[in-house]
Amino acid sequence: MRASVPLIFDLFSAAPKTQLEYDYDGPSMKTSVPGPRSQNVGAVNFFCNYEESRGNYLVDVDNNRMLDVYTQISSIPIGYNHPALLKLMANPNHLSTLVNRPALGILPPENFPDKLTESLLSVSPSGMTRVQTMACGSCSNENAYKAMFIWYRNKERGHNMPSDEDVSTCMINKAPGCPDLSILSFNGGFHGRTMGCLATTHSKAIHKLDVPSFDWPMAPFPRLQYPLEEFTRENAQEEARCLEETEDVIVKWRQKGNPVAGIVIEPIQAEGGDNHASPDFFKGLRNIARKHGCAFHVDEVQTGGGATGKYWAHEHWGMDDPADIVSFSKKLLTGGYYHKDELQPYRIFNTWMGDPSKNLLLAEVLNVIRRENLLEEVTRSGKALLNGLYDLQAQYPGILSRARGQGTFCAIDICDDATRNSILLKARDKGVLLGGCGDRSIRFRPALIFKEYHVHIFLNIFNDVLAEHK
Amino acid sequence: MRASVPLIFDLFSAAPKTQLEYDYDGPSMKTSVPGPRSQNVGAVNFFCNYEESRGNYLVDVDNNRMLDVYTQISSIPIGYNHPALLKLMANPNHLSTLVNRPALGILPPENFPDKLTESLLSVSPSGMTRVQTMACGSCSNENAYKAMFIWYRNKERGHNMPSDEDVSTCMINKAPGCPDLSILSFNGGFHGRTMGCLATTHSKAIHKLDVPSFDWPMAPFPRLQYPLEEFTRENAQEEARCLEETEDVIVKWRQKGNPVAGIVIEPIQAEGGDNHASPDFFKGLRNIARKHGCAFHVDEVQTGGGATGKYWAHEHWGMDDPADIVSFSKKLLTGGYYHKDELQPYRIFNTWMGDPSKNLLLAEVLNVIRRENLLEEVTRSGKALLNGLYDLQAQYPGILSRARGQGTFCAIDICDDATRNSILLKARDKGVLLGGCGDRSIRFRPALIFKEYHVHIFLNIFNDVLAEHK
Repeated sequence: MRASVPLIFDLFSAAPKTQLEYDYDGPSMKTSVPGPRSQNVGAVNFFCNYEESRGNYLVDVDNNRMLDVYTQISSIPIGYNHPALLKLMANPNHLSTLVNRPALGILPPENFPDKLTESLLSVSPSGMTRVQTMACGSCSNENAYKAMFIWYRNKERGHNMPSDEDVSTCMINKAPGCPDLSILSFNGGFHGRTMGCLATTHSKAIHKLDVPSFDWPMAPFPRLQYPLEEFTRENAQEEARCLEETEDVIVKWRQKGNPVAGIVIEPIQAEGGDNHASPDFFKGLRNIARKHGCAFHVDEVQTGGGATGKYWAHEHWGMDDPADIVSFSKKLLTGGYYHKDELQPYRIFNTWMGDPSKNLLLAEVLNVIRRENLLEEVTRSGKALLNGLYDLQAQYPGILSRARGQGTFCAIDICDDATRNSILLKARDKGVLLGGCGDRSIRFRPALIFKEYHVHIFLNIFNDVLAEHK
Repeated sequence: MRASVPLIFDLFSAAPKTQLEYDYDGPSMKTSVPGPRSQNVGAVNFFCNYEESRGNYLVDVDNNRMLDVYTQISSIPIGYNHPALLKLMANPNHLSTLVNRPALGILPPENFPDKLTESLLSVSPSGMTRVQTMACGSCSNENAYKAMFIWYRNKERGHNMPSDEDVSTCMINKAPGCPDLSILSFNGGFHGRTMGCLATTHSKAIHKLDVPSFDWPMAPFPRLQYPLEEFTRENAQEEARCLEETEDVIVKWRQKGNPVAGIVIEPIQAEGGDNHASPDFFKGLRNIARKHGCAFHVDEVQTGGGATGKYWAHEHWGMDDPADIVSFSKKLLTGGYYHKDELQPYRIFNTWMGDPSKNLLLAEVLNVIRRENLLEEVTRSGKALLNGLYDLQAQYPGILSRARGQGTFCAIDICDDATRNSILLKARDKGVLLGGCGDRSIRFRPALIFKEYHVHIFLNIFNDVLAEHK
């Protein structure tokens, strides 16, 4: 830790105005983690003191204070105990929203459509005028898939009136009522762990093992070389190959009587190892979907909410008509999906269909993002982070490779799985909380309030950890 | 409305001490519903003013005040704006829980296991020592099914180490990694609308239509005659027939290579039409599950939480070992499931895995239930309700039949679908909110604070509506 002190000091004196007032000024470790007060139970990492956590710092029950660059699997948008959110929740006008959870689909609160217009619809992806909230990310994708199946069948029939055979067969899980239709997904993709979602998830065996699945097609996701700008020709070839195979798979599944109703893809494959692809790849894929009559679903559960420097990672593609459905959760605090008019939500229903108390928090998060220009800040911090990772990669070529990212949504590969896991634990004991993804990557998922000086605190500690591994 | 006034007055003067202080004293209608301020949007019934709603009364945006006997599809445990819940949420000590939603599976808050012990585990079903929270009812059932599949495969293997073939095949949705295993469910059952749940749902075509499904078996749920005590012999025969067919189906699916890993059933089929079965039926089914090595999952999403006069409807069976898994949501305010030790949760995971802010509310709901002896009250109100329905059934034999129920979890059949729907709308315009289920039933789903005098307010108004239909 000694080496890092002067640099942190320099940063504080250089940029005192940008420091967050409600944040701590750095990590502070009392014990190794998990400490004595964190009984280790199953998959639990350690127990937390959320009351004492602030801004970018998560405090555990042993009073260890860690710079959080993982943020509850990328789900804390503006840090812990943000004053704006504390103030919001302390407002007695909102008590009723906290204690009376409605069945939103039939008995919404007064002005609910207006509130959606002010919050979720104020950041609608291009071409999408409607949104449906859900309780979590998996439910969002499950229902998005259902919306695509219903849309596809209505298109096949030419209208939305089912036949008597449709009605009678669906009750016993048989076609044509429960049709042989599929969702195409990508190798390395992750879309959740409920049974529909899981049939499109292909990141780790442990997620899928022992659970029955559907005969749905999987296409290759491009395996690009980084930095992207140094390998444009090779990467373009790889993407062309993947698009070609995708189209082959669509044709093949149609021929075997299980046509692709929808294509689902992450703008950056997160759980699967932070795999990027170019705007041209996604434009090509969008065209393939259109050509073959498949709906196009962009899963922004992990990428959405600002971490790439835009509300939606797909905005970096620069398309007017990027998708038919865009799902979200995590940093948006509520699950849900945006959709085009023609993917009518009428038959999508459950008891809660979201939670107005989460929408309330989200509206204030969006206010904070706008007021504090957090997307610009993320872009700035993200550049500092990626440049720092490039420097470290040059310094530790035996350990690090493939630094990559957009905004603060960054990752780097470690030489092997065991070293990766050791680095994660050592960084934690030095006060930096990180997460892994893929086989041997580390993913960086800070909150949107992760400033340049936090980047430098992180880089210093990460450098110390790497020096010990050299 | 005139006919009902004296009776209400009598009730108030007879039992003033039991009236809820925070409740309204009766319905008050300004317009028909939906009124002018409720713009009708798709499936929305009307817009609500949750701030002004109190106890058993839901107030809409036109200031119509309705006695709520449906409670947001059975999901409001102790009425609107209960003072205990308002006080809880106004406590600044809980602000942190409201604004910092953790990834519960890896970074739970301090004392989280203790808090579960005080709340959910304090009402554990017999034989179940563990609970896993989830965000909603569908996610609860999806994950319960996964837990049963994992348990079944470990049992088949004799250990929990997958083979290389398991690992490689699961990544492409193929057996043996994604095995051909099934969940047996019942005709008329409802277990949610995500794709795994939907394959076990057989209540209405509209839920299932156009969504691909699994080749999973469906067994007949007994169609009993009511009142149950008058048809014991006929009903026992019907139940024996259903048990026999269930066993046949299990054998058949095993023979065709898609064995039944688990059986899922509701203690009272709710969405499917409030269909009851006897404790003997469920005991027989439990034995069949044991005999054939299937896990037994009781879905208490709608029945759980006290409306039958016990926390869990399956307690009425009087069994020490009623199930391997019991799922819940709705009145419990959080989704989740209890399970036996051997259905280990280790591989069940997602980002949120529930929400501590909902657990906080639930703990206080359980305090209120105990403090106010609400289960006894429910039993008392339920008797008054069912007796009232019997009386009305005798008075309107051309309209009403098959009155049935346990606690306040009651239902009655109407002569036909059109009359049922007309009665629901007329009751609403007179200030009573009811819900339908099945083809032509009305289900009664009041909160646990629905007292005998609320029963009489309801019966008076229901009588007026029926008189107009006679």
